[in-house]
Amino acid sequence: MISIVAVEGIQELEEGDDLAAFVAERAELEDGDVVVVAQKAVSKIEGRVVRLDDVVPSERARELAGGTDPRRLEVILQESVRLVRTRPPLVISETRHGFVCASAGVDQSNAPEAGMLVLLPVDPDASAARLRDGLRERTGRFVGVIVADSFGRAWRQGTTDVAVGAAGVRVLLDLHGERDRVGYELHATVIALADEIAGAAQLVMGKLDGVPVAVVRGLDVAGEESARDLVMPADRDLFR
Amino acid sequence: MISIVAVEGIQELEEGDDLAAFVAERAELEDGDVVVVAQKAVSKIEGRVVRLDDVVPSERARELAGGTDPRRLEVILQESVRLVRTRPPLVISETRHGFVCASAGVDQSNAPEAGMLVLLPVDPDASAARLRDGLRERTGRFVGVIVADSFGRAWRQGTTDVAVGAAGVRVLLDLHGERDRVGYELHATVIALADEIAGAAQLVMGKLDGVPVAVVRGLDVAGEESARDLVMPADRDLFR
Repeated sequence: MISIVAVEGIQELEEGDDLAAFVAERAELEDGDVVVVAQKAVSKIEGRVVRLDDVVPSERARELAGGTDPRRLEVILQESVRLVRTRPPLVISETRHGFVCASAGVDQSNAPEAGMLVLLPVDPDASAARLRDGLRERTGRFVGVIVADSFGRAWRQGTTDVAVGAAGVRVLLDLHGERDRVGYELHATVIALADEIAGAAQLVMGKLDGVPVAVVRGLDVAGEESARDLVMPADRDLFR
Repeated sequence: MISIVAVEGIQELEEGDDLAAFVAERAELEDGDVVVVAQKAVSKIEGRVVRLDDVVPSERARELAGGTDPRRLEVILQESVRLVRTRPPLVISETRHGFVCASAGVDQSNAPEAGMLVLLPVDPDASAARLRDGLRERTGRFVGVIVADSFGRAWRQGTTDVAVGAAGVRVLLDLHGERDRVGYELHATVIALADEIAGAAQLVMGKLDGVPVAVVRGLDVAGEESARDLVMPADRDLFR
């Protein structure tokens, strides 16, 4: 059995807050638990926010804005290394981490105040590792941590949460070479474990409730892989 | 809290098997539970399998096979209404249901025997509704049902399970017009609930264990939407 529990009672987070302390106070962790934390919570405590008033939009940002606030598009361009698709004001791009997502992960909702944008962490794996280490110090428990963000998908409506940062967990379950019950090699079967865990946690975290952390128990996924392993390598990507 | 429990002890399924009876015997259902069933289990009991020996490949199938078995590609072509990307022997296509996925959902692993291919159900929502109704008859419980399949994603490695059929559940959680804690309208936020539920269930079902059913408890998702609502409408799809 797997259980997923929201960690409630964490107040609105601010730059410099000690998230590990907040979680350790409010959750009874066990070894092997996976702590899923919303990217926005991590970004806020790491100060990855931009005030729109401080942004001067370029001509390109104005073109892409399609009548919306060009300063937001300017920030998206600055967070992107490559544009994949654009239909103003919609931008799908590749971030410097390699993630392909809408708006380069730049988000206006749940910002600390109106007029602010929240960016992805600079190194979400490192963010996950800091929380993992902080939880080990405070609780003595060996847990995994996933930093989750809501991504849209090609061809499908709606977002699902996926892992943008990971520490102490396997992110892919590779069944290459294993055989199913009739002996057929499951050569195409690699499961995006960490993305499924992030999506599962999202089911209890919600968007509006402001619950930024959930604990998933009953998995057996301890390991050490980077969330960047979830990015399709360029040579295998049919949709670049 | 959400819990996810695998329904164990279901033998290899065959055409005509009464899946509702098997599940009712092995799970203590409660109202509001969501029963997630692997697409392959549904397809097998519905007889949606093809014997490779009965398939005569076309020239186009040979081209797309890239040296692999062209009969498999022929079946994929027959299940497709539009090819989205091809790199022999890899085909991403749109199925007659509207789903965009690898191999039109045609799968060789976990087939009843070697030399067989398993196709998607003809109408996966109807399959879900039959199981939902069968469970209600046998248990008196009002549950939701999701038929799940493992889909690859653009730009990301690994598959996640998504909903290809649904009955008795909402599949999308639309937060349009709701406001977050600083009053910013979450206008881009539609959550693909049923896909996240399918992915969460996959975490206990595995691939090799042959566990085709899981029960997700603690959600509040009763409703009536089609899994086809998870398909991005053509006019909004940047990746057709």
